Amino acid sequence: MKLDVVFTPVLLDKPNLQGNLCAVVDVLRATSTIVTALASGAAAVRPCLNVAEARREAAKMGPGRALLGGEEMGQLIPGFDLGNSPLEYMSEGTVSGKTIYFYTTNGTGAIRRARAESGQPTFIAALLNVSAACAAIAEAYQGRPGKGITVICSGRYGKPSAEDIFCAGLIAAGVASAVRCSGNTPELTDSAAVAAGFAQASIERAHDVLCSSEHGRYLQSLGFEADLEFASRLDAFNAVPVFDGERIVLMDRPTN
Amino acid sequence: MKLDVVFTPVLLDKPNLQGNLCAVVDVLRATSTIVTALASGAAAVRPCLNVAEARREAAKMGPGRALLGGEEMGQLIPGFDLGNSPLEYMSEGTVSGKTIYFYTTNGTGAIRRARAESGQPTFIAALLNVSAACAAIAEAYQGRPGKGITVICSGRYGKPSAEDIFCAGLIAAGVASAVRCSGNTPELTDSAAVAAGFAQASIERAHDVLCSSEHGRYLQSLGFEADLEFASRLDAFNAVPVFDGERIVLMDRPTN
Repeated sequence: MKLDVVFTPVLLDKPNLQGNLCAVVDVLRATSTIVTALASGAAAVRPCLNVAEARREAAKMGPGRALLGGEEMGQLIPGFDLGNSPLEYMSEGTVSGKTIYFYTTNGTGAIRRARAESGQPTFIAALLNVSAACAAIAEAYQGRPGKGITVICSGRYGKPSAEDIFCAGLIAAGVASAVRCSGNTPELTDSAAVAAGFAQASIERAHDVLCSSEHGRYLQSLGFEADLEFASRLDAFNAVPVFDGERIVLMDRPTN
Repeated sequence: MKLDVVFTPVLLDKPNLQGNLCAVVDVLRATSTIVTALASGAAAVRPCLNVAEARREAAKMGPGRALLGGEEMGQLIPGFDLGNSPLEYMSEGTVSGKTIYFYTTNGTGAIRRARAESGQPTFIAALLNVSAACAAIAEAYQGRPGKGITVICSGRYGKPSAEDIFCAGLIAAGVASAVRCSGNTPELTDSAAVAAGFAQASIERAHDVLCSSEHGRYLQSLGFEADLEFASRLDAFNAVPVFDGERIVLMDRPTN
């Protein structure tokens, strides 16, 4: 079984993706925010390709059922209800039962593309749910052996992001370990091996990886220090969001 | 000073490269072979974009002055004098005083492109000369502060290679350290930080990184095990080849 990490969507290779199980990572901050919103009671997140699509689709929902969320250049979009800080999505009073039409610079496009090019359900992963995501991916793989697994880093304007590679490396190592336990032999691509090696070497300093990364420094300059602290919490949630091509919703999983 | 590692030439960004000092890495095997050939007395290496260019340019040299070298799909090219195994280039009797017209699948194109897009001399680096390359790059940087340094991994058919990221990470860490000693503050991009972290975690197992990589496994399947052992020798040579846009020749350096 081939286990790949794609460092940025620029390196996605559609023929190789077809039929693979995919996970998308955007630690700062799209996937951290999606995990938080759904774990806090949101009904669904709809990843949008641009601001206009988010506004248009949200307007089709009945009054009080939709929220607009996301960012451009890291900032709140004019007229949107919520930005891209996971902390804004923690309150059940805010998000409970709502469908969130969500647009971000790098993450939502990567999620849409992963689903479109793989033709398979796409897992949403962050440090906040990394162990639950590994377990869900390994479990889903049991149902369809022979296909590969691809972890896609959203990156930043087409360039790799350290925090995404860190998270993808933890997923590659965790999924490889789980798959091996069930008697299969995972074959890590070079990118997966590099990500896993980097993650292993940095596991004790997750917060520092986020703070010293290029996007982490940018977010700190905007005053989002608390987001970095929150997004670096490993396994804060047991929730695994999955995108079916329409909506991102939580998988049914044991709440251990 | 910005210090970047580019995981594959697909991710090269011409506007950002302009004016930067570049180093190109192709551990398996183009840059390992170039370092070995020049350290063994070859007059120059001419990196070619295709087999036809290599044949045409070599034919312009007088009899006995040129050699054709390189590979396609890892194998000797019909009519060529030498393949892409560094061990073939160790004998002074073979390469001494000769100009080698050299074509390989990934490395020679990356070298040509780095020089063309940066407009600057391009360093040729491998594990075989990694410390000498770090010293030469840091020294050249002193002469032109303000510009960045970019280490380009040749990769494999557009995908990242673990052995190149390993070598590039050692260079990023080594150059950062040297630049810091001379009072400048290097700013590592995320890619450079990931490469340096991976390299640091793998420094004791260079041979294993090469053997377990995708291209390393392919070369072993072709019977090139000895090349992997040789190319993993850190600092076997003190030689630093530089490409000026025409020819790759050795820099004058102290032979400590």
